Amino acid sequence: MKVNGTPQRTIWPTADGTAVEIIDQTKLPFAFETVRLETVNEAAHAIFDMLVRGAPLIGATAAYGMALAMNTDPSDANMDRAYKTLFEARPTAVNLRWAIDEMKAVLSPLAPKDRFAAAMKRSAEICDEDVAICSAIGDHGKELIEVAYEKAGKSRPVNVLTHCNAGWLATVDWGTAIAPIYKAHDAGIPVHVWVDETRPRNQGASLTAWELNQHGVPHTVIADNAGGHLMQHGQVDLCIVGTDRTTSIGDVCNKIGTYLKALAAKDNGVPFYVALPGPTIDWTLKQGRDIPIEERDPTEVTEMTGKDRDGKRHTVRIVSEGSKAANPAFDVTPNYLVSKLITERGVCEASEEGLRSLYPDQAEAWKK
Amino acid sequence: MKVNGTPQRTIWPTADGTAVEIIDQTKLPFAFETVRLETVNEAAHAIFDMLVRGAPLIGATAAYGMALAMNTDPSDANMDRAYKTLFEARPTAVNLRWAIDEMKAVLSPLAPKDRFAAAMKRSAEICDEDVAICSAIGDHGKELIEVAYEKAGKSRPVNVLTHCNAGWLATVDWGTAIAPIYKAHDAGIPVHVWVDETRPRNQGASLTAWELNQHGVPHTVIADNAGGHLMQHGQVDLCIVGTDRTTSIGDVCNKIGTYLKALAAKDNGVPFYVALPGPTIDWTLKQGRDIPIEERDPTEVTEMTGKDRDGKRHTVRIVSEGSKAANPAFDVTPNYLVSKLITERGVCEASEEGLRSLYPDQAEAWKK
Repeated sequence: MKVNGTPQRTIWPTADGTAVEIIDQTKLPFAFETVRLETVNEAAHAIFDMLVRGAPLIGATAAYGMALAMNTDPSDANMDRAYKTLFEARPTAVNLRWAIDEMKAVLSPLAPKDRFAAAMKRSAEICDEDVAICSAIGDHGKELIEVAYEKAGKSRPVNVLTHCNAGWLATVDWGTAIAPIYKAHDAGIPVHVWVDETRPRNQGASLTAWELNQHGVPHTVIADNAGGHLMQHGQVDLCIVGTDRTTSIGDVCNKIGTYLKALAAKDNGVPFYVALPGPTIDWTLKQGRDIPIEERDPTEVTEMTGKDRDGKRHTVRIVSEGSKAANPAFDVTPNYLVSKLITERGVCEASEEGLRSLYPDQAEAWKK
Repeated sequence: MKVNGTPQRTIWPTADGTAVEIIDQTKLPFAFETVRLETVNEAAHAIFDMLVRGAPLIGATAAYGMALAMNTDPSDANMDRAYKTLFEARPTAVNLRWAIDEMKAVLSPLAPKDRFAAAMKRSAEICDEDVAICSAIGDHGKELIEVAYEKAGKSRPVNVLTHCNAGWLATVDWGTAIAPIYKAHDAGIPVHVWVDETRPRNQGASLTAWELNQHGVPHTVIADNAGGHLMQHGQVDLCIVGTDRTTSIGDVCNKIGTYLKALAAKDNGVPFYVALPGPTIDWTLKQGRDIPIEERDPTEVTEMTGKDRDGKRHTVRIVSEGSKAANPAFDVTPNYLVSKLITERGVCEASEEGLRSLYPDQAEAWKK
C-alpha cells in the first residue's frame, strides 16, 4: 500500500539483487525507516527483534534469510546453519517454519552454485503468493463492505471497526482484515475505520492508524473500551478482524480483546467478520478454548512508550507502584460469535462445514 | 481506608476547625499529598481542577466550601456568592447541587454569627452520612463475596473484577463498588481483585490499584481487553462496578467499557453486580440508551502521562501523528446484563420492581 504517496511492500529485494530491504516496524509510527539485510544473521535479528512482525511477513523474511545465506556460502552445511539460526529466531512461528522447510526442499537438490539465484527467485515467489492471497481476501471482503454501503442507501461512509493490526504491515502487502478496507477505498466506496487502540501493545493506535493514514483511508482511533458503545448507537456497520489461528470448527484466536468486540457485535446485530489466509487454519484443533494462551511481560501493561511534544521518546510507568499486572496476549472468539470467515477462496460460515466447503483439499489432507 | 497503614478519609476538618484537608488526587498514584482548603474559592478550585473527584466527594467538598465561606463572611450576600462559585465549578454534578442546596436551607434561617459552626457541623454530617451509605453497601455486597467464597469451597481467594475507580477515593470512605471488597478483606475472606486499567484515563491502573495496594488487598492490573478471556477461563468469580446514573428500570450508565465486561460476564455465567447509593437513582429516566454520553477531549486517548525510571513525569503521544481520536466517556449497560444491584438498603434485581421494593419512598416521591 502507499507510504508518502508511493506504493510500498514490507519486504523487497535491493536493485542489485544481493540483499533485501525491510521497514523497521519498531520505529513506527514515529519514523519510517528502512533497513538493509545482507546476511542470514541480520534476517534472524530482524525477526527476533520484531523489526518485522506478522506471520506472513516473518515467513517471507525467513525465506530471504535462507537466500542471503546462500550468497555467502551455498554449501549444505551453511544451509543447515542458516535453517537453525532462523528457526531459533522465533521457534513458535508456523509460517517461519514452513518457509525455511520450503526453501530447504527447493535448494537441497540443486548444485551449490545455482542455489543463491534459485533462493532469491523462490523467496520472491513466496512474497508474491502472499500478496495474491491477501489481495483475494480483500476482493471477497470488499463485497461485504459494498453490501453494507448499499444497505445504508449509499448515503454515508461505511463504518468498519477493527482490532489490532491485521494490515499490510503484518503481511507483504494488503493485509488480511484491512485488505477489504483498502480494496473498498480504492474502488471509491467511502469507508471510515474505527481503530481499536489495542492495549497493551497499541498496535491499532500505532500501526493500523499509521498505515490507514499513509494510504489516505479516513479513520478514528478509540480506546478499546469504546466499541460496544458505538455499536449500541448504530455507529458501526461491521467489524473485521484478523486471526492468528483458526480451528477446524471456526473458533478464532486473535489479539486479546477481540472476544469482547464479538460479544458486542452479536448483542447489537452488527456483522463480525474474521479474515484469514487458508494456510493458517489448524485442522488438528477443534475447540478454541484448548489453545494455550501466551502470557507476555507485564511491563507491556505497566509501561507505555510515546513521544513528548518535543519529539523525544519516553517510556513511562502508568500503573501505581507496588501493583502487579497480568498480560494474556490473545483470546478466543467462539464460532457462534463470528458472522462469516473471509478467505482467499471466498466467504464461508465459521463452522466445520463452512471451512470444508472452501478447503476440501486441506480437510482431506489432514484426515490422512 | 488505610494509607501507609493509617486510616484515612478523602476529606476531613483540620484540628482547629477552621479549614478542611483533602487528598490531591491529581498527584496519585505517583505522590500522596494533602491540601488545606481555607476559602470557598480554594474549595471550588479543588473541584474544578479535579483534586477531588467522584460524586459523593464533590458533594462533601462543596458543603465544606459553603462552610468556609461562612467563616470569613456569614452574610446572606456572601452565602449567595459562595453558592454561585461552587455551582459553577461543576454545573452538571448532581451531588454538588444537592449539597449546596442543603447547606443553604440549613444556614438561611440562622443568625449570621451561628452560621459557621452550624455549617461545619452539617458538612461533617453529610460526610458521615456518605460513609454510612458506603459502609452499608459494603456490608450487603460482602455477603455476595462470601457466597462466592463458599461456592469455591473456601479453597482459594475469591476473584473479583472491577472497572474504573468506584473506591473510597471517589467517596468520603469505603467507596461503592470496592466497599464490599474492603469489607470482605477486613473480615478475613481472601479476595483478589482484577483491576481493569480503564482507558483512556486509567483510573483503574492509577487510583484503584493505588488504594487497594495501600489497604493491602491483593490485586492485579489488566488491560481492559483481558477481562473476557479471564472469565472464559474461570478466573473471575464475580464482577462489581459502580454507576454514575441508574435509571428507574435498572439500566446503569458507568465508565466506558463497563458494557463489554457485562456482556462477557453474561456469556460466561459470571455474576455482574453494580453498586450504588440510592440517591443516585434517576427516577425520571427509564431507558439508559436515552442518556446523552459526554464526549471528552481526544487527547485523553492520544496522550498518556506517567513517570520514567528516574521518577520524572512525562506526557507522551501514543497515537500515530495525523490520526484523530474519539473519546466517549461512558456507556450504558442494559438491565438484562446486570445480575443484581447492591445498595445501602440491600440487594435487588436490576428492574423497576427491584428498585421499587427497596425505595418505595423515592419511587412514590417521584410519581408526585
